[in-house]
Amino acid sequence: MIKVGIVGGTGYTGVELLRLLAQHPEAELAAITSRKETGVAVSTMFPSLRGRVDLAFADPAKVDLTSCDMVFFATPNGVAMGEAQRLVDSGVRVVDLSADFRLRDVAEWEKWYGLKHACPALIAQAVYGLPEMNRERIRTARLVANPGCYPTAVQLGFLPLVEAGVIDMKHLIADGKSGVSGAGRKTELGLMYAEAADNFKAYNVPGHRHLPEIRQGLAAALGSDIGLTFVAHLTPLIRGIHATLYARVTKAADMQALFEARYAQEPFVDVLPAHSHPDTRSVRVSNICRLAVHQPQGADTVVVLSVIDNLVKGAAGQAVQNMNLMFGFGETLGLMQVPVVP
Amino acid sequence: MIKVGIVGGTGYTGVELLRLLAQHPEAELAAITSRKETGVAVSTMFPSLRGRVDLAFADPAKVDLTSCDMVFFATPNGVAMGEAQRLVDSGVRVVDLSADFRLRDVAEWEKWYGLKHACPALIAQAVYGLPEMNRERIRTARLVANPGCYPTAVQLGFLPLVEAGVIDMKHLIADGKSGVSGAGRKTELGLMYAEAADNFKAYNVPGHRHLPEIRQGLAAALGSDIGLTFVAHLTPLIRGIHATLYARVTKAADMQALFEARYAQEPFVDVLPAHSHPDTRSVRVSNICRLAVHQPQGADTVVVLSVIDNLVKGAAGQAVQNMNLMFGFGETLGLMQVPVVP
Amino acid sequence: MIKVGIVGGTGYTGVELLRLLAQHPEAELAAITSRKETGVAVSTMFPSLRGRVDLAFADPAKVDLTSCDMVFFATPNGVAMGEAQRLVDSGVRVVDLSADFRLRDVAEWEKWYGLKHACPALIAQAVYGLPEMNRERIRTARLVANPGCYPTAVQLGFLPLVEAGVIDMKHLIADGKSGVSGAGRKTELGLMYAEAADNFKAYNVPGHRHLPEIRQGLAAALGSDIGLTFVAHLTPLIRGIHATLYARVTKAADMQALFEARYAQEPFVDVLPAHSHPDTRSVRVSNICRLAVHQPQGADTVVVLSVIDNLVKGAAGQAVQNMNLMFGFGETLGLMQVPVVP
Amino acid sequence: MIKVGIVGGTGYTGVELLRLLAQHPEAELAAITSRKETGVAVSTMFPSLRGRVDLAFADPAKVDLTSCDMVFFATPNGVAMGEAQRLVDSGVRVVDLSADFRLRDVAEWEKWYGLKHACPALIAQAVYGLPEMNRERIRTARLVANPGCYPTAVQLGFLPLVEAGVIDMKHLIADGKSGVSGAGRKTELGLMYAEAADNFKAYNVPGHRHLPEIRQGLAAALGSDIGLTFVAHLTPLIRGIHATLYARVTKAADMQALFEARYAQEPFVDVLPAHSHPDTRSVRVSNICRLAVHQPQGADTVVVLSVIDNLVKGAAGQAVQNMNLMFGFGETLGLMQVPVVP
Repeated sequence: MIKVGIVGGTGYTGVELLRLLAQHPEAELAAITSRKETGVAVSTMFPSLRGRVDLAFADPAKVDLTSCDMVFFATPNGVAMGEAQRLVDSGVRVVDLSADFRLRDVAEWEKWYGLKHACPALIAQAVYGLPEMNRERIRTARLVANPGCYPTAVQLGFLPLVEAGVIDMKHLIADGKSGVSGAGRKTELGLMYAEAADNFKAYNVPGHRHLPEIRQGLAAALGSDIGLTFVAHLTPLIRGIHATLYARVTKAADMQALFEARYAQEPFVDVLPAHSHPDTRSVRVSNICRLAVHQPQGADTVVVLSVIDNLVKGAAGQAVQNMNLMFGFGETLGLMQVPVVP
Repeated sequence: MIKVGIVGGTGYTGVELLRLLAQHPEAELAAITSRKETGVAVSTMFPSLRGRVDLAFADPAKVDLTSCDMVFFATPNGVAMGEAQRLVDSGVRVVDLSADFRLRDVAEWEKWYGLKHACPALIAQAVYGLPEMNRERIRTARLVANPGCYPTAVQLGFLPLVEAGVIDMKHLIADGKSGVSGAGRKTELGLMYAEAADNFKAYNVPGHRHLPEIRQGLAAALGSDIGLTFVAHLTPLIRGIHATLYARVTKAADMQALFEARYAQEPFVDVLPAHSHPDTRSVRVSNICRLAVHQPQGADTVVVLSVIDNLVKGAAGQAVQNMNLMFGFGETLGLMQVPVVP
Repeated sequence: MIKVGIVGGTGYTGVELLRLLAQHPEAELAAITSRKETGVAVSTMFPSLRGRVDLAFADPAKVDLTSCDMVFFATPNGVAMGEAQRLVDSGVRVVDLSADFRLRDVAEWEKWYGLKHACPALIAQAVYGLPEMNRERIRTARLVANPGCYPTAVQLGFLPLVEAGVIDMKHLIADGKSGVSGAGRKTELGLMYAEAADNFKAYNVPGHRHLPEIRQGLAAALGSDIGLTFVAHLTPLIRGIHATLYARVTKAADMQALFEARYAQEPFVDVLPAHSHPDTRSVRVSNICRLAVHQPQGADTVVVLSVIDNLVKGAAGQAVQNMNLMFGFGETLGLMQVPVVP
Repeated sequence: MIKVGIVGGTGYTGVELLRLLAQHPEAELAAITSRKETGVAVSTMFPSLRGRVDLAFADPAKVDLTSCDMVFFATPNGVAMGEAQRLVDSGVRVVDLSADFRLRDVAEWEKWYGLKHACPALIAQAVYGLPEMNRERIRTARLVANPGCYPTAVQLGFLPLVEAGVIDMKHLIADGKSGVSGAGRKTELGLMYAEAADNFKAYNVPGHRHLPEIRQGLAAALGSDIGLTFVAHLTPLIRGIHATLYARVTKAADMQALFEARYAQEPFVDVLPAHSHPDTRSVRVSNICRLAVHQPQGADTVVVLSVIDNLVKGAAGQAVQNMNLMFGFGETLGLMQVPVVP
């Protein structure tokens, strides 16, 4: 049993962490902080947790998280970079669910996030927490940068093709569709029910922050730069990401076999039979990524369909998966809830 | 570990049973039948269960369910009444999620369900499976009639008031709102997305089959007949029931204290603090019923708000709760999943 | 052709007024004000109006609305009471869509709205703008207090029963369900998609501001005080109100005939055939109220189902209907759009 | 005033035609047929049309549509091809909203639709009813093949690029997202609320019937064959299509200027300012297509965003637009309803 702390637990990734950790057999929730909600019982803010989480939100200035074995940052971008170093120095293992340590190139990070990075030195130590790419390095990491939601779905979808070297890497296209919870638990006009329901739109087409993150991951897998067009869309889902990926085939291959072989040993990646269409529903409230690969009309464009729950495999679930790896627990411990249908 | 069979597992109560039983530490899923889908793998029909349920739907004519310890009927009304007797005679414990054994008055049942009852003798043996009313009788029951979804929410909401004798029992009003999954996994025009989304309506106002069931339960609690107006509404939810209950107060009482005392020991009934408004979200995908009681403006009308997940506490979860009682397992075993928010 | 101004046009009642007035043959939109959005083109904020409304939002301090024939206030509560007098004094006809002039009892208003009323003198002149009750007085009114959304649905549903004197007026129950747009175009957490979708809850059960408004209207129709329990619910609709009304019958009557007779001449109230269940869909984007009346099981409780589009008959459409009456246009002018299905 | 008939008016395109024609100043609805619903009043099936459409569904075998000036087929594929010839021979102008006359290559049609074409001779006479491509030919057409919903959104989005010859025409990608009403008013399991809500998935990735239709239209505009990958997705919208289009730029161009010039005179195509993201909401219940064009990061991939209401510009509205052209009415007559927001 390890002692776990959460910094900034009032957002959707926070409450999802709480839901998962409250059911995790090896984690004891020791503290959860919130500047704004100090003193408020967690179960007052989230009645779904009545009887399951007895903590109140603690003042981040007053709680000592160095007594924890493990701390999750579920904070807005820009917070973890100021606080993680001290925890790491104290021997605490840290998983940051924000974007602070995801990009290895500080200048690139500062350009996309519009902030000066407070702790560039720590970036080098951070391991990008996509277990399907970096499992062994995560086990020993002191700081894990938990991937973004779109980057998880897109990278898992492209990875077998990139590693096998069968596609044109200069013109990848990723058409992503996300549920509204992906934007966080914040009150923006475009996220209101009366705005987002029965509505569909693209956003940030000129440039989305997940673009450099995906590009970095796939470039690392390839060993050289890649070209990617990424378009994100807001869709009237509470949870769920569907990424539709397009690439030009440069070398004939049995795509289905390629995908099945790549993920044969992965507990949380499920390659569907040929000709399948995974729906976001089939992974809802679970840590699974389901994939299907098509080559329509036998032409030279390969299409990959990739679905995840943005709050689980795209955030809190993957964070717990990383925690399991870091502490030597079974990788699937506490993460085997069956997807919720309907 | 007991061997469990499910008759008719292709509907929403069926797949929800599968979800719960796949995670239950004392239940081994031995067989699941479906006339229409014989031979189809469960996980082909429900990809959410890939890797979790390895069975295929079996031909009900060919599978021997008498080797099971426990059989659930998740069939349309009219099936269980023809098959339960044989199983009960073989020593199998049965929980029927359909309505076949809910009403003790055969003539009343035949009037509301428009069928001749095939097994009236068994009705007398059946125990109505609302643990908060009939826990001890359920433990020893051979056949449990699992309550309907509205009746669960409405009876749990009225029960403290009825038992305390503080309201006019001749003019109860229950205004129920149900998510669309309550109608089952069937293709009716009014249940299609393009019809039910952004739409709200009452249905069956002249008479709903859950009316006699609620009336029977509350009359039993009171010891004499009651008068009830029950109006059901279809609301654009996937899951969830919200019952808003109205009664005339005939005897002053501390309503909040009454409710808290009545349910103090109940693991799955949660009385919220005074002035609360439970939302269906707070119980989604869980076996919990949350209640709040109000007496607006201090006038003589008491208002009770009662929410459940119609597929869990209103169907499959309650069925598993009954199974736990029947086999002496902990009552909450396999039913402690935290509600899913958002 | 009259010149029309709108004060505060950035909310949902504002954009709905714009939609209706842009299609009204006798109204010319002369000015629309917004403090926050001064200078912004209306069609930039609402791309749906591109090519249809060429105005920009004007600074309320700089635009002279006294040159308008007609001004609508689509402002938060508390604004119109400070500005309407000057316009009325200048001979402008005013319809206030906010609550400032709805309650005749100033003390009652101040209690429910938590503000000191800035212009009590004007309250006496204001006519409550429910044409089905006050048509003749509206024609000559200089200031119309446009009814709330729930009060429109509830009063139209109870009115035939109240006027006929066939029910117990001391224990009326109104169970109202509203779409999310009813709360306005504002960013509250509970109104976000990820909070309000797949969720249902009651709110303000201890006391809702529409309670005194309904009570006042029905008491006026009756000629003496009434008793009412009103419970509002938030339901995952964009638009739509469904009111389910309950009353004890004190005098036998042909309820269906009563309703049909009462509304035979009303262009915007449609009494459905016996045994009907109006859905909110059937009035969406239209100015119609559809009603059905039931007496379930022949017992002594009458149930009325009443549906409107909260933004049309519950706000902007009714305001235009009032404008039509005030200027002697045909009452239905510009309001005959067919409901949108699906 | 022309006399209009509708064959097969019980689906969503049928009820949408009814809504539009009931408000059209030059169309008199003379007859509407339905085999299944013969004798049923239109307003019984669609209460939204109470007081607006007084017809009952007529037996197609008994009604003489040759007395109409104009007949719309709102039937499933395979009906119009058997009946249109007789009407055309009688001098009736026909718009077919189904796919029977969309493809000029009979063999191709028979391959994709799995039927033997009953009237190949008529295909040559049919004009493909996309006014932005074929306006003049539509004016004199006796039979118009009304385009599919995806093809309308996709072709309008690609057309300026194709005509200007600035992109690689061999590798077009169209990622389409459709609301559920696009599948018609039919009871399929995947279209039920409890299945389609809070869910997102691709479908028919191996081959969608709209692929050859789009390919034919763009090839005609180009003057030679094109290569296209088209992926359709089902999204939880009632109405709306969003097409996200990708192409490789082969010749530098001012994309924004290109689009604005191409559609400057089009009443129903609206090119948004640079950097915009049209949402489906902004065209809901209207006949407008809104477009935006991007070239993200200045790279060589152009992205076009195209939105329509699938039931209006994607079906019934475009059919009425075609009728207006065929009878010399103003092209926008009866089609100027402002989009419905929220």
